[in-house]
Amino acid sequence: MIEKSITVRVRYAETDRMGYVYYGNYAVYFEVARVEMLRELGLSYKKLEDSGIILPVLEFTIQYKKPAYYDDLLTIKTYIRKKPTARIVFEYETFNNEGVLLNTAQVTLVVVNKETGKPILPTSEFNGVFIPYFRDEK
Amino acid sequence: MIEKSITVRVRYAETDRMGYVYYGNYAVYFEVARVEMLRELGLSYKKLEDSGIILPVLEFTIQYKKPAYYDDLLTIKTYIRKKPTARIVFEYETFNNEGVLLNTAQVTLVVVNKETGKPILPTSEFNGVFIPYFRDEK
Amino acid sequence: MIEKSITVRVRYAETDRMGYVYYGNYAVYFEVARVEMLRELGLSYKKLEDSGIILPVLEFTIQYKKPAYYDDLLTIKTYIRKKPTARIVFEYETFNNEGVLLNTAQVTLVVVNKETGKPILPTSEFNGVFIPYFRDEK
Amino acid sequence: MIEKSITVRVRYAETDRMGYVYYGNYAVYFEVARVEMLRELGLSYKKLEDSGIILPVLEFTIQYKKPAYYDDLLTIKTYIRKKPTARIVFEYETFNNEGVLLNTAQVTLVVVNKETGKPILPTSEFNGVFIPYFRDEK
Repeated sequence: MIEKSITVRVRYAETDRMGYVYYGNYAVYFEVARVEMLRELGLSYKKLEDSGIILPVLEFTIQYKKPAYYDDLLTIKTYIRKKPTARIVFEYETFNNEGVLLNTAQVTLVVVNKETGKPILPTSEFNGVFIPYFRDEK
Repeated sequence: MIEKSITVRVRYAETDRMGYVYYGNYAVYFEVARVEMLRELGLSYKKLEDSGIILPVLEFTIQYKKPAYYDDLLTIKTYIRKKPTARIVFEYETFNNEGVLLNTAQVTLVVVNKETGKPILPTSEFNGVFIPYFRDEK
Repeated sequence: MIEKSITVRVRYAETDRMGYVYYGNYAVYFEVARVEMLRELGLSYKKLEDSGIILPVLEFTIQYKKPAYYDDLLTIKTYIRKKPTARIVFEYETFNNEGVLLNTAQVTLVVVNKETGKPILPTSEFNGVFIPYFRDEK
Repeated sequence: MIEKSITVRVRYAETDRMGYVYYGNYAVYFEVARVEMLRELGLSYKKLEDSGIILPVLEFTIQYKKPAYYDDLLTIKTYIRKKPTARIVFEYETFNNEGVLLNTAQVTLVVVNKETGKPILPTSEFNGVFIPYFRDEK
Protein backbone atom coordinates (compact mmCIF):
# COMPACT_ATOMS: atom_id res chain seq x y z
CA MET A 1 0.00 0.00 0.00
CA ILE A 2 1.08 3.56 -0.68
CA GLU A 3 -0.16 6.38 1.52
CA LYS A 4 0.37 10.10 1.35
CA SER A 5 -1.13 13.17 3.03
CA ILE A 6 -1.37 16.70 1.73
CA THR A 7 -3.02 19.79 3.14
CA VAL A 8 -5.18 22.14 1.10
CA ARG A 9 -6.48 25.52 2.27
CA VAL A 10 -10.07 26.14 1.12
CA ARG A 11 -10.19 29.16 -1.19
CA TYR A 12 -13.01 31.69 -1.25
CA ALA A 13 -13.71 30.81 -4.89
CA GLU A 14 -14.32 27.21 -3.87
CA THR A 15 -17.18 27.98 -1.49
CA ASP A 16 -20.81 28.36 -2.52
CA ARG A 17 -23.77 30.35 -1.20
CA MET A 18 -24.49 27.58 1.34
CA GLY A 19 -21.08 28.48 2.79
CA TYR A 20 -19.77 24.99 1.96
CA VAL A 21 -17.02 23.89 -0.40
CA TYR A 22 -18.94 23.24 -3.61
CA TYR A 23 -19.40 19.49 -4.02
CA GLY A 24 -17.62 19.39 -7.38
CA ASN A 25 -14.45 21.02 -6.09
CA TYR A 26 -13.24 17.94 -4.25
CA ALA A 27 -12.38 16.49 -7.65
CA VAL A 28 -9.79 19.26 -7.90
CA TYR A 29 -8.38 18.58 -4.44
CA PHE A 30 -8.09 14.86 -5.21
CA GLU A 31 -6.25 15.58 -8.45
CA VAL A 32 -3.78 17.74 -6.52
CA ALA A 33 -3.42 14.97 -3.93
CA ARG A 34 -2.61 12.24 -6.45
CA VAL A 35 -0.22 14.44 -8.43
CA GLU A 36 1.69 15.19 -5.22
CA MET A 37 1.71 11.48 -4.36
CA LEU A 38 3.16 10.65 -7.77
CA ARG A 39 5.72 13.46 -7.39
CA GLU A 40 6.84 12.02 -4.06
CA LEU A 41 7.19 8.62 -5.73
CA GLY A 42 9.45 10.25 -8.31
CA LEU A 43 6.90 10.61 -11.13
CA SER A 44 6.08 14.02 -12.59
CA TYR A 45 2.57 13.84 -14.00
CA LYS A 46 3.47 16.69 -16.33
CA LYS A 47 6.49 14.82 -17.72
CA LEU A 48 4.37 11.70 -18.06
CA GLU A 49 1.91 13.60 -20.23
CA ASP A 50 4.70 15.25 -22.21
CA SER A 51 6.08 11.76 -22.90
CA GLY A 52 2.78 10.71 -24.46
CA ILE A 53 1.01 8.98 -21.60
CA ILE A 54 -2.20 10.43 -20.20
CA LEU A 55 -4.20 9.22 -17.22
CA PRO A 56 -7.84 10.13 -17.78
CA VAL A 57 -10.35 9.35 -15.05
CA LEU A 58 -12.54 6.31 -15.62
CA GLU A 59 -14.66 6.51 -12.50
CA PHE A 60 -15.09 8.89 -9.59
CA THR A 61 -17.18 8.23 -6.49
CA ILE A 62 -17.50 10.38 -3.41
CA GLN A 63 -19.46 9.97 -0.21
CA TYR A 64 -20.06 13.29 1.58
CA LYS A 65 -20.37 13.15 5.34
CA LYS A 66 -19.82 16.72 6.52
CA PRO A 67 -19.12 19.99 4.72
CA ALA A 68 -15.84 21.90 4.58
CA TYR A 69 -15.90 25.66 5.05
CA TYR A 70 -13.96 28.66 3.83
CA ASP A 71 -10.36 28.86 5.05
CA ASP A 72 -10.42 25.33 6.47
CA LEU A 73 -7.05 23.65 6.27
CA LEU A 74 -8.04 20.25 4.93
CA THR A 75 -5.93 17.12 5.14
CA ILE A 76 -6.38 14.77 2.23
CA LYS A 77 -5.10 11.24 2.67
CA THR A 78 -4.51 9.31 -0.53
CA TYR A 79 -4.07 5.55 -0.74
CA ILE A 80 -3.14 3.13 -3.48
CA ARG A 81 -4.06 -0.24 -2.04
CA LYS A 82 -3.61 -2.41 -5.10
CA LYS A 83 -0.65 -2.58 -7.45
CA PRO A 84 -1.42 -0.49 -10.56
CA THR A 85 -1.96 -2.24 -13.88
CA ALA A 86 -3.53 -0.45 -16.83
CA ARG A 87 -5.75 0.99 -14.11
CA ILE A 88 -4.80 2.78 -10.93
CA VAL A 89 -7.25 3.15 -8.07
CA PHE A 90 -6.76 6.04 -5.67
CA GLU A 91 -8.75 6.13 -2.45
CA TYR A 92 -9.20 9.33 -0.50
CA GLU A 93 -10.21 10.59 2.91
CA THR A 94 -10.70 14.29 3.61
CA PHE A 95 -10.35 15.61 7.15
CA ASN A 96 -10.87 19.14 8.50
CA ASN A 97 -8.74 21.07 11.02
CA GLU A 98 -10.33 19.16 13.92
CA GLY A 99 -9.61 15.77 12.42
CA VAL A 100 -13.24 15.15 11.48
CA LEU A 101 -13.69 12.92 8.43
CA LEU A 102 -15.59 14.99 5.84
CA ASN A 103 -15.77 12.54 2.97
CA THR A 104 -14.33 9.43 1.39
CA ALA A 105 -13.76 8.95 -2.32
CA GLN A 106 -12.35 6.67 -5.00
CA VAL A 107 -10.86 7.65 -8.36
CA THR A 108 -9.92 5.13 -11.02
CA LEU A 109 -7.46 6.29 -13.66
CA VAL A 110 -6.60 4.43 -16.83
CA VAL A 111 -3.20 4.58 -18.52
CA VAL A 112 -3.72 5.74 -22.11
CA ASN A 113 -1.49 6.36 -25.11
CA LYS A 114 -2.07 10.01 -26.00
CA GLU A 115 -1.66 9.41 -29.74
CA THR A 116 -3.92 6.39 -30.12
CA GLY A 117 -6.29 7.14 -27.27
CA LYS A 118 -6.07 3.44 -26.32
CA PRO A 119 -5.34 1.98 -22.88
CA ILE A 120 -1.79 0.66 -22.58
CA LEU A 121 0.20 -1.23 -20.03
CA PRO A 122 2.35 1.26 -18.14
CA THR A 123 6.06 1.42 -18.99
CA SER A 124 8.60 -0.23 -16.73
CA GLU A 125 9.76 3.21 -15.57
CA PHE A 126 6.20 3.94 -14.54
CA ASN A 127 5.77 0.54 -12.90
CA GLY A 128 9.12 0.75 -11.21
CA VAL A 129 8.07 3.40 -8.75
CA PHE A 130 5.17 1.32 -7.48
CA ILE A 131 6.85 -2.09 -7.22
CA PRO A 132 8.65 -1.52 -3.90
CA TYR A 133 5.32 -0.89 -2.22
CA PHE A 134 3.65 -4.08 -3.44
CA ARG A 135 6.40 -6.70 -2.99
CA ASP A 136 4.11 -9.14 -1.25
CA GLU A 137 1.48 -9.15 -3.97
CA LYS A 138 1.50 -12.07 -6.33
CA MET B 1 -40.24 8.23 -13.45
CA ILE B 2 -39.38 11.82 -14.25
CA GLU B 3 -37.15 12.61 -17.21
CA LYS B 4 -35.76 15.89 -18.49
CA SER B 5 -33.12 16.93 -21.02
CA ILE B 6 -31.05 20.10 -21.10
CA THR B 7 -28.24 21.21 -23.38
CA VAL B 8 -25.01 22.76 -22.14
CA ARG B 9 -22.37 24.36 -24.34
CA VAL B 10 -18.82 23.52 -23.14
CA ARG B 11 -17.01 26.70 -22.11
CA TYR B 12 -13.32 27.32 -22.71
CA ALA B 13 -12.78 27.65 -18.95
CA GLU B 14 -14.11 24.13 -18.49
CA THR B 15 -11.50 22.44 -20.68
CA ASP B 16 -8.08 21.36 -19.52
CA ARG B 17 -4.67 20.97 -21.18
CA MET B 18 -5.67 17.50 -22.41
CA GLY B 19 -8.34 19.34 -24.43
CA TYR B 20 -11.09 17.55 -22.50
CA VAL B 21 -13.76 18.89 -20.20
CA TYR B 22 -12.10 18.63 -16.80
CA TYR B 23 -13.51 15.61 -14.98
CA GLY B 24 -14.74 17.64 -12.03
CA ASN B 25 -16.83 20.00 -14.14
CA TYR B 26 -19.58 17.47 -14.83
CA ALA B 27 -20.68 18.01 -11.23
CA VAL B 28 -21.54 21.57 -12.28
CA TYR B 29 -23.45 20.44 -15.37
CA PHE B 30 -25.43 17.93 -13.32
CA GLU B 31 -26.35 20.60 -10.77
CA VAL B 32 -27.62 22.80 -13.61
CA ALA B 33 -29.55 19.83 -15.02
CA ARG B 34 -31.35 19.01 -11.77
CA VAL B 35 -32.14 22.64 -10.99
CA GLU B 36 -33.75 22.99 -14.43
CA MET B 37 -35.67 19.76 -13.86
CA LEU B 38 -36.99 21.08 -10.54
CA ARG B 39 -37.87 24.40 -12.19
CA GLU B 40 -39.88 22.59 -14.85
CA LEU B 41 -41.69 20.70 -12.09
CA GLY B 42 -42.57 24.05 -10.54
CA LEU B 43 -39.92 24.12 -7.81
CA SER B 44 -37.38 26.93 -7.63
CA TYR B 45 -34.29 25.61 -5.90
CA LYS B 46 -33.44 29.16 -4.89
CA LYS B 47 -36.83 29.69 -3.22
CA LEU B 48 -36.48 26.31 -1.55
CA GLU B 49 -33.18 27.42 0.02
CA ASP B 50 -34.60 30.79 0.95
CA SER B 51 -37.46 28.97 2.73
CA GLY B 52 -34.95 27.12 4.91
CA ILE B 53 -34.55 23.81 3.08
CA ILE B 54 -31.20 22.86 1.56
CA LEU B 55 -30.37 19.82 -0.54
CA PRO B 56 -26.71 18.97 0.01
CA VAL B 57 -25.18 16.12 -1.97
CA LEU B 58 -24.74 12.85 -0.09
CA GLU B 59 -23.09 10.81 -2.82
CA PHE B 60 -21.86 11.42 -6.35
CA THR B 61 -20.69 8.72 -8.75
CA ILE B 62 -19.68 9.12 -12.37
CA GLN B 63 -18.49 6.64 -14.98
CA TYR B 64 -16.52 8.32 -17.78
CA LYS B 65 -16.70 6.65 -21.19
CA LYS B 66 -15.56 9.31 -23.64
CA PRO B 67 -14.37 12.90 -23.27
CA ALA B 68 -16.27 16.06 -24.18
CA TYR B 69 -14.40 18.83 -25.99
CA TYR B 70 -14.48 22.60 -26.19
CA ASP B 71 -17.63 24.07 -27.75
CA ASP B 72 -19.46 20.72 -27.75
CA LEU B 73 -23.18 21.14 -27.28
CA LEU B 74 -23.85 18.45 -24.68
CA THR B 75 -27.23 16.94 -23.93
CA ILE B 76 -27.71 15.93 -20.32
CA LYS B 77 -30.59 13.62 -19.56
CA THR B 78 -31.73 13.56 -15.95
CA TYR B 79 -33.91 10.89 -14.41
CA ILE B 80 -35.65 10.45 -11.07
CA ARG B 81 -36.65 6.80 -11.06
CA LYS B 82 -37.80 6.46 -7.49
CA LYS B 83 -40.22 8.65 -5.56
CA PRO B 84 -38.20 11.05 -3.40
CA THR B 85 -38.25 10.62 0.38
CA ALA B 86 -35.72 12.36 2.62
CA ARG B 87 -33.35 11.41 -0.20
CA ILE B 88 -33.65 12.12 -3.90
CA VAL B 89 -31.61 10.15 -6.42
CA PHE B 90 -30.87 11.78 -9.76
CA GLU B 91 -29.43 9.68 -12.58
CA TYR B 92 -27.66 11.28 -15.50
CA GLU B 93 -26.51 10.51 -19.02
CA THR B 94 -24.34 12.94 -20.98
CA PHE B 95 -24.35 12.83 -24.79
CA ASN B 96 -22.32 14.86 -27.29
CA ASN B 97 -23.47 16.49 -30.56
CA GLU B 98 -23.30 13.14 -32.35
CA GLY B 99 -25.45 11.35 -29.79
CA VAL B 100 -22.51 9.44 -28.32
CA LEU B 101 -22.92 8.60 -24.63
CA LEU B 102 -20.01 10.26 -22.81
CA ASN B 103 -20.76 9.32 -19.23
CA THR B 104 -23.37 8.14 -16.76
CA ALA B 105 -23.72 9.42 -13.22
CA GLN B 106 -25.78 9.29 -10.05
CA VAL B 107 -26.26 12.04 -7.46
CA THR B 108 -28.04 11.49 -4.15
CA LEU B 109 -29.33 14.61 -2.41
CA VAL B 110 -30.66 14.73 1.12
CA VAL B 111 -33.37 17.14 2.28
CA VAL B 112 -31.98 19.13 5.21
CA ASN B 113 -33.33 21.82 7.52
CA LYS B 114 -30.92 24.74 7.07
CA GLU B 115 -31.21 25.84 10.70
CA THR B 116 -30.69 22.49 12.39
CA GLY B 117 -28.55 20.86 9.71
CA LYS B 118 -30.65 17.72 10.20
CA PRO B 119 -32.35 15.64 7.48
CA ILE B 120 -36.09 16.23 7.33
CA LEU B 121 -39.01 14.76 5.47
CA PRO B 122 -39.85 17.08 2.59
CA THR B 123 -42.90 19.33 2.95
CA SER B 124 -46.15 18.43 1.21
CA GLU B 125 -45.58 21.30 -1.25
CA PHE B 126 -42.22 19.76 -2.13
CA ASN B 127 -43.68 16.25 -2.34
CA GLY B 128 -46.67 17.43 -4.33
CA VAL B 129 -44.68 18.11 -7.47
CA PHE B 130 -43.32 14.57 -7.56
CA ILE B 131 -46.49 12.62 -6.74
CA PRO B 132 -48.10 12.72 -10.20
CA TYR B 133 -45.04 10.95 -11.63
CA PHE B 134 -45.08 8.08 -9.16
CA ARG B 135 -48.75 7.19 -8.91
CA ASP B 136 -48.17 3.51 -9.37
CA GLU B 137 -45.64 3.20 -6.58
CA LYS B 138 -46.87 1.83 -3.30
CA MET C 1 -19.77 49.05 -33.99
CA ILE C 2 -20.85 45.48 -33.36
CA GLU C 3 -23.24 44.70 -30.52
CA LYS C 4 -24.58 41.42 -29.21
CA SER C 5 -26.49 40.28 -26.13
CA ILE C 6 -26.52 36.90 -24.48
CA THR C 7 -28.16 35.64 -21.31
CA VAL C 8 -26.40 33.51 -18.71
CA ARG C 9 -28.06 31.80 -15.77
CA VAL C 10 -25.91 31.97 -12.60
CA ARG C 11 -24.93 28.46 -11.50
CA TYR C 12 -24.66 27.38 -7.88
CA ALA C 13 -20.98 26.59 -8.40
CA GLU C 14 -20.36 30.19 -9.41
CA THR C 15 -21.56 31.71 -6.14
CA ASP C 16 -19.43 32.17 -3.05
CA ARG C 17 -20.11 32.22 0.68
CA MET C 18 -21.03 35.93 0.45
CA GLY C 19 -23.89 34.72 -1.75
CA TYR C 20 -22.48 36.67 -4.71
CA VAL C 21 -21.14 35.46 -8.04
CA TYR C 22 -17.42 35.11 -7.32
CA TYR C 23 -15.60 38.08 -8.82
CA GLY C 24 -13.38 35.94 -11.04
CA ASN C 25 -16.28 34.15 -12.71
CA TYR C 26 -17.26 37.10 -14.87
CA ALA C 27 -14.17 36.33 -16.95
CA VAL C 28 -15.91 33.08 -17.89
CA TYR C 29 -19.19 34.80 -18.77
CA PHE C 30 -17.36 37.34 -20.94
CA GLU C 31 -15.53 34.56 -22.79
CA VAL C 32 -18.88 32.90 -23.50
CA ALA C 33 -20.29 36.26 -24.64
CA ARG C 34 -17.51 36.96 -27.13
CA VAL C 35 -17.48 33.42 -28.51
CA GLU C 36 -21.23 33.70 -29.17
CA MET C 37 -20.70 37.10 -30.80
CA LEU C 38 -18.04 35.62 -33.09
CA ARG C 39 -20.32 32.67 -33.86
CA GLU C 40 -23.11 35.04 -34.88
CA LEU C 41 -20.65 36.85 -37.14
CA GLY C 42 -19.85 33.51 -38.78
CA LEU C 43 -16.61 32.75 -36.96
CA SER C 44 -16.22 29.59 -34.89
CA TYR C 45 -13.58 30.26 -32.26
CA LYS C 46 -12.94 26.54 -32.11
CA LYS C 47 -12.25 26.31 -35.84
CA LEU C 48 -10.08 29.40 -35.60
CA GLU C 49 -7.91 27.66 -33.00
CA ASP C 50 -7.87 24.44 -34.98
CA SER C 51 -6.61 26.45 -37.98
CA GLY C 52 -3.63 27.66 -35.97
CA ILE C 53 -4.81 31.05 -34.71
CA ILE C 54 -5.26 31.65 -31.01
CA LEU C 55 -6.64 34.76 -29.29
CA PRO C 56 -5.06 35.01 -25.84
CA VAL C 57 -6.15 37.81 -23.53
CA LEU C 58 -3.77 40.76 -23.25
CA GLU C 59 -5.67 42.83 -20.74
CA PHE C 60 -8.83 42.44 -18.67
CA THR C 61 -10.44 45.20 -16.61
CA ILE C 62 -13.70 45.06 -14.71
CA GLN C 63 -15.55 47.62 -12.60
CA TYR C 64 -17.99 45.99 -10.16
CA LYS C 65 -21.05 48.05 -9.23
CA LYS C 66 -23.50 45.54 -7.78
CA PRO C 67 -23.37 41.80 -7.13
CA ALA C 68 -25.18 39.06 -9.04
CA TYR C 69 -26.86 36.28 -7.10
CA TYR C 70 -27.60 32.59 -7.56
CA ASP C 71 -30.10 31.77 -10.29
CA ASP C 72 -30.08 35.33 -11.68
CA LEU C 73 -30.62 35.42 -15.42
CA LEU C 74 -27.91 37.87 -16.45
CA THR C 75 -27.82 39.75 -19.73
CA ILE C 76 -24.34 40.41 -21.03
CA LYS C 77 -23.99 43.02 -23.73
CA THR C 78 -20.81 42.84 -25.78
CA TYR C 79 -19.51 45.61 -27.99
CA ILE C 80 -16.67 45.93 -30.50
CA ARG C 81 -16.39 49.65 -31.05
CA LYS C 82 -13.18 49.78 -33.07
CA LYS C 83 -12.27 47.75 -36.14
CA PRO C 84 -10.04 44.84 -35.05
CA THR C 85 -6.36 44.87 -36.05
CA ALA C 86 -3.85 42.52 -34.42
CA ARG C 87 -5.84 43.43 -31.31
CA ILE C 88 -9.55 43.19 -30.66
CA VAL C 89 -11.17 45.12 -27.84
CA PHE C 90 -14.42 43.77 -26.40
CA GLU C 91 -16.43 45.95 -24.05
CA TYR C 92 -19.03 44.45 -21.75
CA GLU C 93 -22.00 45.43 -19.64
CA THR C 94 -23.68 42.94 -17.29
CA PHE C 95 -27.31 43.47 -16.28
CA ASN C 96 -29.48 41.47 -13.89
CA ASN C 97 -33.13 40.39 -14.30
CA GLU C 98 -34.33 43.86 -13.30
CA GLY C 99 -32.15 45.62 -15.84
CA VAL C 100 -29.74 46.92 -13.20
CA LEU C 101 -26.19 47.41 -14.47
CA LEU C 102 -23.96 45.15 -12.35
CA ASN C 103 -20.57 45.79 -13.92
CA THR C 104 -18.70 47.06 -16.95
CA ALA C 105 -15.59 45.45 -18.38
CA GLN C 106 -13.06 45.51 -21.19
CA VAL C 107 -11.09 42.60 -22.63
CA THR C 108 -8.29 43.03 -25.17
CA LEU C 109 -7.39 39.96 -27.21
CA VAL C 110 -4.36 39.64 -29.46
CA VAL C 111 -4.29 37.52 -32.62
CA VAL C 112 -1.43 35.04 -32.30
CA ASN C 113 0.06 32.34 -34.50
CA LYS C 114 -0.22 29.17 -32.41
CA GLU C 115 3.04 27.71 -33.79
CA THR C 116 5.29 30.74 -33.37
CA GLY C 117 3.50 32.33 -30.43
CA LYS C 118 3.88 35.68 -32.20
CA PRO C 119 1.16 38.27 -32.88
CA ILE C 120 -0.02 38.27 -36.48
CA LEU C 121 -2.31 40.34 -38.61
CA PRO C 122 -5.61 38.49 -38.91
CA THR C 123 -6.36 36.71 -42.16
CA SER C 124 -8.69 38.25 -44.71
CA GLU C 125 -11.32 35.64 -43.83
CA PHE C 126 -11.10 36.75 -40.22
CA ASN C 127 -11.17 40.43 -41.17
CA GLY C 128 -13.97 39.91 -43.61
CA VAL C 129 -16.59 39.31 -40.97
CA PHE C 130 -15.84 42.60 -39.23
CA ILE C 131 -15.54 44.91 -42.26
CA PRO C 132 -19.27 45.41 -42.90
CA TYR C 133 -19.62 46.87 -39.41
CA PHE C 134 -16.85 49.43 -39.77
CA ARG C 135 -17.39 50.81 -43.28
CA ASP C 136 -17.19 54.43 -42.17
CA GLU C 137 -13.83 54.06 -40.44
CA LYS C 138 -10.85 55.36 -42.32
CA MET D 1 4.43 49.81 1.82
CA ILE D 2 3.52 46.23 2.64
CA GLU D 3 4.90 43.38 0.55
CA LYS D 4 4.32 39.66 0.68
CA SER D 5 5.10 36.68 -1.54
CA ILE D 6 3.29 33.40 -1.81
CA THR D 7 3.76 30.44 -4.11
CA VAL D 8 0.93 28.66 -5.90
CA ARG D 9 1.23 25.41 -7.81
CA VAL D 10 -0.86 25.44 -11.02
CA ARG D 11 -3.55 22.74 -10.84
CA TYR D 12 -4.68 20.69 -13.81
CA ALA D 13 -8.21 22.05 -13.40
CA GLU D 14 -6.87 25.56 -13.86
CA THR D 15 -5.41 24.97 -17.33
CA ASP D 16 -7.36 25.23 -20.57
CA ARG D 17 -7.14 23.55 -23.97
CA MET D 18 -4.49 26.09 -25.03
CA GLY D 19 -2.35 24.57 -22.26
CA TYR D 20 -2.33 27.88 -20.39
CA VAL D 21 -3.74 28.82 -17.01
CA TYR D 22 -7.21 30.11 -17.92
CA TYR D 23 -7.15 33.92 -17.82
CA GLY D 24 -9.92 34.12 -15.23
CA ASN D 25 -8.12 31.91 -12.70
CA TYR D 26 -5.59 34.56 -11.69
CA ALA D 27 -8.44 36.24 -9.81
CA VAL D 28 -8.42 33.17 -7.57
CA TYR D 29 -4.66 33.24 -7.06
CA PHE D 30 -4.78 36.94 -6.17
CA GLU D 31 -7.53 36.32 -3.64
CA VAL D 32 -5.37 33.64 -2.02
CA ALA D 33 -2.40 36.02 -2.07
CA ARG D 34 -4.20 38.87 -0.31
CA VAL D 35 -5.82 36.59 2.26
CA GLU D 36 -2.39 35.21 3.16
CA MET D 37 -1.00 38.76 3.35
CA LEU D 38 -3.78 39.74 5.74
CA ARG D 39 -3.18 36.57 7.79
CA GLU D 40 0.50 37.46 8.13
CA LEU D 41 -0.52 40.92 9.29
CA GLY D 42 -2.68 39.28 11.94
CA LEU D 43 -6.06 39.61 10.23
CA SER D 44 -8.16 36.54 9.44
CA TYR D 45 -10.37 37.39 6.49
CA LYS D 46 -12.78 34.73 7.67
CA LYS D 47 -13.09 36.27 11.14
CA LEU D 48 -13.49 39.68 9.54
CA GLU D 49 -16.47 38.41 7.57
CA ASP D 50 -17.90 36.62 10.58
CA SER D 51 -17.71 39.93 12.49
CA GLY D 52 -19.88 41.58 9.86
CA ILE D 53 -17.32 43.24 7.58
CA ILE D 54 -17.00 42.13 3.97
CA LEU D 55 -14.47 43.27 1.40
CA PRO D 56 -16.06 42.95 -2.04
CA VAL D 57 -13.97 43.78 -5.11
CA LEU D 58 -14.62 47.17 -6.68
CA GLU D 59 -12.20 46.93 -9.60
CA PHE D 60 -9.86 44.31 -11.03
CA THR D 61 -7.32 44.93 -13.79
CA ILE D 62 -4.76 42.51 -15.17
CA GLN D 63 -2.13 42.84 -17.87
CA TYR D 64 -1.07 39.46 -19.28
CA LYS D 65 2.49 39.23 -20.59
CA LYS D 66 3.22 35.51 -20.74
CA PRO D 67 1.21 32.40 -19.97
CA ALA D 68 1.62 30.06 -17.00
CA TYR D 69 1.50 26.31 -17.60
CA TYR D 70 0.39 23.22 -15.75
CA ASP D 71 2.42 22.36 -12.65
CA ASP D 72 4.29 25.69 -12.70
CA LEU D 73 5.19 26.88 -9.22
CA LEU D 74 4.15 30.51 -9.46
CA THR D 75 5.33 33.25 -7.13
CA ILE D 76 2.79 35.96 -6.52
CA LYS D 77 4.04 39.19 -5.02
CA THR D 78 1.41 41.36 -3.39
CA TYR D 79 1.88 45.01 -2.50
CA ILE D 80 -0.17 47.57 -0.60
CA ARG D 81 1.47 50.86 -1.52
CA LYS D 82 -1.03 53.28 -0.01
CA LYS D 83 -2.52 53.26 3.49
CA PRO D 84 -5.97 51.66 3.32
CA THR D 85 -9.03 53.85 3.88
CA ALA D 86 -12.52 52.64 2.99
CA ARG D 87 -10.69 51.23 -0.03
CA ILE D 88 -7.66 48.98 -0.16
CA VAL D 89 -5.60 48.67 -3.32
CA PHE D 90 -3.60 45.47 -3.80
CA GLU D 91 -1.02 45.32 -6.58
CA TYR D 92 0.25 42.01 -7.89
CA GLU D 93 3.09 40.55 -9.92
CA THR D 94 3.08 36.90 -10.98
CA PHE D 95 6.37 35.15 -11.74
CA ASN D 96 7.02 31.62 -12.99
CA ASN D 97 9.69 29.14 -11.85
CA GLU D 98 12.34 30.91 -13.93
CA GLY D 99 11.58 34.32 -12.46
CA VAL D 100 9.87 35.54 -15.62
CA LEU D 101 7.17 38.15 -14.99
CA LEU D 102 3.90 36.69 -16.34
CA ASN D 103 1.45 39.42 -15.46
CA THR D 104 0.76 42.45 -13.31
CA ALA D 105 -2.58 43.24 -11.72
CA GLN D 106 -4.45 45.58 -9.41
CA VAL D 107 -7.43 44.79 -7.19
CA THR D 108 -9.38 47.43 -5.30
CA LEU D 109 -11.47 46.23 -2.36
CA VAL D 110 -14.00 48.28 -0.49
CA VAL D 111 -14.79 47.82 3.21
CA VAL D 112 -18.52 47.16 3.54
CA ASN D 113 -20.92 46.57 6.43
CA LYS D 114 -22.45 43.17 5.69
CA GLU D 115 -25.84 44.14 7.18
CA THR D 116 -26.35 47.47 5.44
CA GLY D 117 -24.33 46.76 2.31
CA LYS D 118 -22.82 50.25 2.68
CA PRO D 119 -19.11 51.21 2.62
CA ILE D 120 -17.74 51.93 6.06
CA LEU D 121 -14.50 53.22 7.50
CA PRO D 122 -12.53 50.25 8.79
CA THR D 123 -12.43 49.68 12.52
CA SER D 124 -9.39 50.68 14.54
CA GLU D 125 -8.49 47.00 14.96
CA PHE D 126 -8.51 46.66 11.20
CA ASN D 127 -6.53 49.88 10.70
CA GLY D 128 -4.12 49.00 13.44
CA VAL D 129 -2.42 46.26 11.49
CA PHE D 130 -1.64 48.59 8.59
CA ILE D 131 -0.46 51.67 10.51
CA PRO D 132 3.08 50.47 11.30
CA TYR D 133 3.75 50.16 7.58
CA PHE D 134 2.64 53.67 6.67
CA ARG D 135 4.11 55.78 9.46
CA ASP D 136 5.58 58.35 7.10
CA GLU D 137 2.32 59.06 5.31
CA LYS D 138 0.49 62.22 6.27
